[in-house]
Amino acid sequence: MTDTVIHDTPDAAALAQATATAMWSRDRTAHALGMQIAHIASGTATLRMSVRQDMLNGHNICHGGMIFTLADTAFAYACNSYNHNTVASACHIDFLAPAREGDTLEAHAVEQSLSGRTGVYDITVRHADSQKVIALFRGKSYRIQGAVIDTLQNTEPSSQA
Amino acid sequence: MTDTVIHDTPDAAALAQATATAMWSRDRTAHALGMQIAHIASGTATLRMSVRQDMLNGHNICHGGMIFTLADTAFAYACNSYNHNTVASACHIDFLAPAREGDTLEAHAVEQSLSGRTGVYDITVRHADSQKVIALFRGKSYRIQGAVIDTLQNTEPSSQA
Amino acid sequence: MTDTVIHDTPDAAALAQATATAMWSRDRTAHALGMQIAHIASGTATLRMSVRQDMLNGHNICHGGMIFTLADTAFAYACNSYNHNTVASACHIDFLAPAREGDTLEAHAVEQSLSGRTGVYDITVRHADSQKVIALFRGKSYRIQGAVIDTLQNTEPSSQA
Amino acid sequence: MTDTVIHDTPDAAALAQATATAMWSRDRTAHALGMQIAHIASGTATLRMSVRQDMLNGHNICHGGMIFTLADTAFAYACNSYNHNTVASACHIDFLAPAREGDTLEAHAVEQSLSGRTGVYDITVRHADSQKVIALFRGKSYRIQGAVIDTLQNTEPSSQA
Repeated sequence: MTDTVIHDTPDAAALAQATATAMWSRDRTAHALGMQIAHIASGTATLRMSVRQDMLNGHNICHGGMIFTLADTAFAYACNSYNHNTVASACHIDFLAPAREGDTLEAHAVEQSLSGRTGVYDITVRHADSQKVIALFRGKSYRIQGAVIDTLQNTEPSSQA
Repeated sequence: MTDTVIHDTPDAAALAQATATAMWSRDRTAHALGMQIAHIASGTATLRMSVRQDMLNGHNICHGGMIFTLADTAFAYACNSYNHNTVASACHIDFLAPAREGDTLEAHAVEQSLSGRTGVYDITVRHADSQKVIALFRGKSYRIQGAVIDTLQNTEPSSQA
Repeated sequence: MTDTVIHDTPDAAALAQATATAMWSRDRTAHALGMQIAHIASGTATLRMSVRQDMLNGHNICHGGMIFTLADTAFAYACNSYNHNTVASACHIDFLAPAREGDTLEAHAVEQSLSGRTGVYDITVRHADSQKVIALFRGKSYRIQGAVIDTLQNTEPSSQA
Repeated sequence: MTDTVIHDTPDAAALAQATATAMWSRDRTAHALGMQIAHIASGTATLRMSVRQDMLNGHNICHGGMIFTLADTAFAYACNSYNHNTVASACHIDFLAPAREGDTLEAHAVEQSLSGRTGVYDITVRHADSQKVIALFRGKSYRIQGAVIDTLQNTEPSSQA
């Protein structure tokens, strides 16, 4: 979908995997919410999360913030997959259907655009079983300084700490 | 700010407070994340949350999903303050500055519009100490069937369970 | 992409075409801006527009409002294609690249969700020649009362003007 | 509202006015749609537009794209008021009520945030007579290279064409 990035080389896939592994080790929110990474490649990621009782809101359905957090995390793994530190600058979410305690949710992130320092990613959140869509999320990414895995940068001869 | 709702009666304030109390007792996400309600009135709410270690992401800053969840919760208390069950249909968030472990965040929700079954609310998330803005959130609400506090409905003579 | 609507019957295609014809006869903005309908079917539409001098802004590039209007028009033809009067309740647009005088732009609308009275549509705006993406638009639709083509309704025996 | 910019000096007001005058001379869309600038200052702008017959859509109400274009133009004058070339990177609009032929609309832009190269502006579109709100628009700005008024830059001793 993107105009400017070559995704599907073995090196790109390995870099995406290595970057995800490095982020994952530090990602306390993803662990606290019991997320799992189902798939990672350049510009894309799929994560899963089961709705626990402590993710319900005052209407006894899954808190929209928890659905957002799952989508936002898939977005983060997709947009950081080139090992450039990248953050969300803005996100939009449409809530289409509720999720309930015990449901397993799946968020699939796809890169729609990447040009210069900004990208646009679409994340679809579905019930994992029925594949019914419960939320559509669109995020704008912004590349900041630094790399997710510093040591990969440091292997280049000219770079100095 | 709204065209159609009278807010500032004692009864309206008491209803907003009672509704918040009822929602709060069921709001497991707000409790799990250590949120506190600082202020509630008709169409408005202010909530606080301290950034814990388990709210950090792979870049070692507060996860955007946690900032969103705080804002979304303030939105929920504001748009449910008339005791009509109301959910988020869409939300947009602009992230302006990072938050870090130990920061206390404050989300202040204001009603911009309420007409028929839909409303628009603006939620500003600030560092509680410096009042520096870290995120701007705009949410669209949609009123569904039922009341937050069923017993208030049941006090009307004609209603039967 | 949608969960609930059967699109691809001959009758559905004919209805989409008839609805578009009826809307088009009244759509003075689309005519004033020189738009053309390239394709219509149930839940989808493709429109084209050439950037004229009177569509430029103070930076001498195509006004964002003109790009939005093209996308919003494609959205309108897509979400009205079932002959139910449907309006935009909210739209989000990301501007990715500029357009210039003389460029022909193409907006392609796809239905992502339709459930009850609300739908979500994604509209991609491209340079018609290069197919380079210049804007990504997401619109939320809301079905109101009435039909685009009243006479279709009036063929039912029980309806009276 | 903004954290980082001093607005209310006479020089800032004069610069905002001069920048608007320069942009206005090139802004063919604003002229073609009959817009008028009602007020300009640093970080803010108010514009008006009357809904003409050629601004109606297939539902016989003002095209959402025309309402967006008015809001987007107010946004442009507000975010360019420091004489730094600035464009929209993303916009979100909630449509709250329709506008009809002959209505005069007023768009008022307020700066909510400006930090580094990005800003967030809220634009409220009202019926000029009743002040009823018909749309809420939020735009994200991005500063690009160059100045709106080149000659102001050129008065600085060190600058060379």
